[in-house]
Amino acid sequence: MAMRDFEDQSNNLSEASPAHVRGLIRRGDITGQTGGMAFGYMQGNLAILPSDLALDFARYCQRNPKPCPLVGISETGDPMLRTLGEDIDIRSDISSYNVYRDGELADTVTDITELWRDDLVAFVLGCSFSFEEALQAGGVPLRHLEVGYVVPMYRSNIQTVPAGPFHGPTVVSMRPMPMTEAIRAVEITARFPMMHGKPVHIGDPAGIGIGDLNDPVWGDVPDIREGEVPVFWACGVTPQAAVMAAKPAFCITHKPGSMLITDLPSGSVT
Amino acid sequence: MAMRDFEDQSNNLSEASPAHVRGLIRRGDITGQTGGMAFGYMQGNLAILPSDLALDFARYCQRNPKPCPLVGISETGDPMLRTLGEDIDIRSDISSYNVYRDGELADTVTDITELWRDDLVAFVLGCSFSFEEALQAGGVPLRHLEVGYVVPMYRSNIQTVPAGPFHGPTVVSMRPMPMTEAIRAVEITARFPMMHGKPVHIGDPAGIGIGDLNDPVWGDVPDIREGEVPVFWACGVTPQAAVMAAKPAFCITHKPGSMLITDLPSGSVT
Repeated sequence: MAMRDFEDQSNNLSEASPAHVRGLIRRGDITGQTGGMAFGYMQGNLAILPSDLALDFARYCQRNPKPCPLVGISETGDPMLRTLGEDIDIRSDISSYNVYRDGELADTVTDITELWRDDLVAFVLGCSFSFEEALQAGGVPLRHLEVGYVVPMYRSNIQTVPAGPFHGPTVVSMRPMPMTEAIRAVEITARFPMMHGKPVHIGDPAGIGIGDLNDPVWGDVPDIREGEVPVFWACGVTPQAAVMAAKPAFCITHKPGSMLITDLPSGSVT
Repeated sequence: MAMRDFEDQSNNLSEASPAHVRGLIRRGDITGQTGGMAFGYMQGNLAILPSDLALDFARYCQRNPKPCPLVGISETGDPMLRTLGEDIDIRSDISSYNVYRDGELADTVTDITELWRDDLVAFVLGCSFSFEEALQAGGVPLRHLEVGYVVPMYRSNIQTVPAGPFHGPTVVSMRPMPMTEAIRAVEITARFPMMHGKPVHIGDPAGIGIGDLNDPVWGDVPDIREGEVPVFWACGVTPQAAVMAAKPAFCITHKPGSMLITDLPSGSVT
């Protein structure tokens, strides 16, 4: 989809209810990114794993709450996410899924009904869309949204606490801003522990093991201007990278940017 | 132990390190309550369950973070709680344990080394000791600590979100104070989501299904004075009650008041 088309779709759906947007996704009318849709409602990252890895993944999330804020766990084999909203079927209500076999991307699909199994457990983790809403509402402009690029992401030298086969570095996202806004951003995002919370670092990238800000591992090269400092937050790509490192025989995630839109208000934390 | 002896022991150990206090507990020199010991460090509630119930209990805690703030999960069969401190052996480092068989209290012991099994998983949950420190430091006096009674606890009509066999009402603790202090208490405890967080209710007990404040289910009859309102927080007895309701074949908890003293600073949230 061209950026212009996406923006039109996103703007039209910013005031829509989560149920309405999920309905469009379930019917296949939306297959792309969900940023900006159903404004004010929590969107989440998805990881679906076989039950023999589920307790280890729950441990991994508990031990690494900043990159892996766990907002929902399905019953084993039950595709309905009852604690996150009304009639959420995780097999059809995300616009695009990545299917991994033995740790390798095997397919990208818009529905996983045929792939669902009795031993699967779905995990939903908080994402940064919600705190970005709060930052903008709090008067902190976000360059990547204003200019229209994907937020850059880097591997930091902050290691996560491992659990079973899950391990790896904390992946961080970076947003540039003047220091006065960075301080305000700490205050605002500290209120959202379920959406990565406060920054992990402000300033010198080398302080967390990042060499060149213009060489992100994921996302786009950032637009950093005179007098701005880079502000780093733990990122939801961290658990995805940990799952890839674990090379499970079978695993399904959302396609980056295609989040689950829940019925929970963005501001609901604990 | 007489109250006077406990107070002496507690006062002497308020400045001690967590490792020092755990050493005394491991040697059997402390068998009673841990309140006031190793001031400034997070103390936790304990639930040890067989691994076939562990994922459901992790789900229960995730779904009910206010009464069940999960601060640590052991590896299956590993008694060392590596994420909560240095050399914490959950078989010996709590002063008193309750052992349940088929949901009934079968024994109270000071060491569970003989009972440990390869399929056990230890869960540690935040407790209110830490936020009580913060309340006192913030100028909110706590009557039960000043007068010397056990905080009263009640079954509310706020149902927890069930997971597998775990279910039941939210148990709440109550502290009376003037409304000005209650508002300050909301501000302070909201900063501690891993220790039950902000209150669930202020004022009329009937609003959360509690009949008579002078008839608590656990703890002592409160001393409520002229011009004070009752302030209710979610309580760590909630998961214990849910475990009892599930009637697992085998389960071990701490004896109430005999908490695990971790190496984590009380103020460390996420």
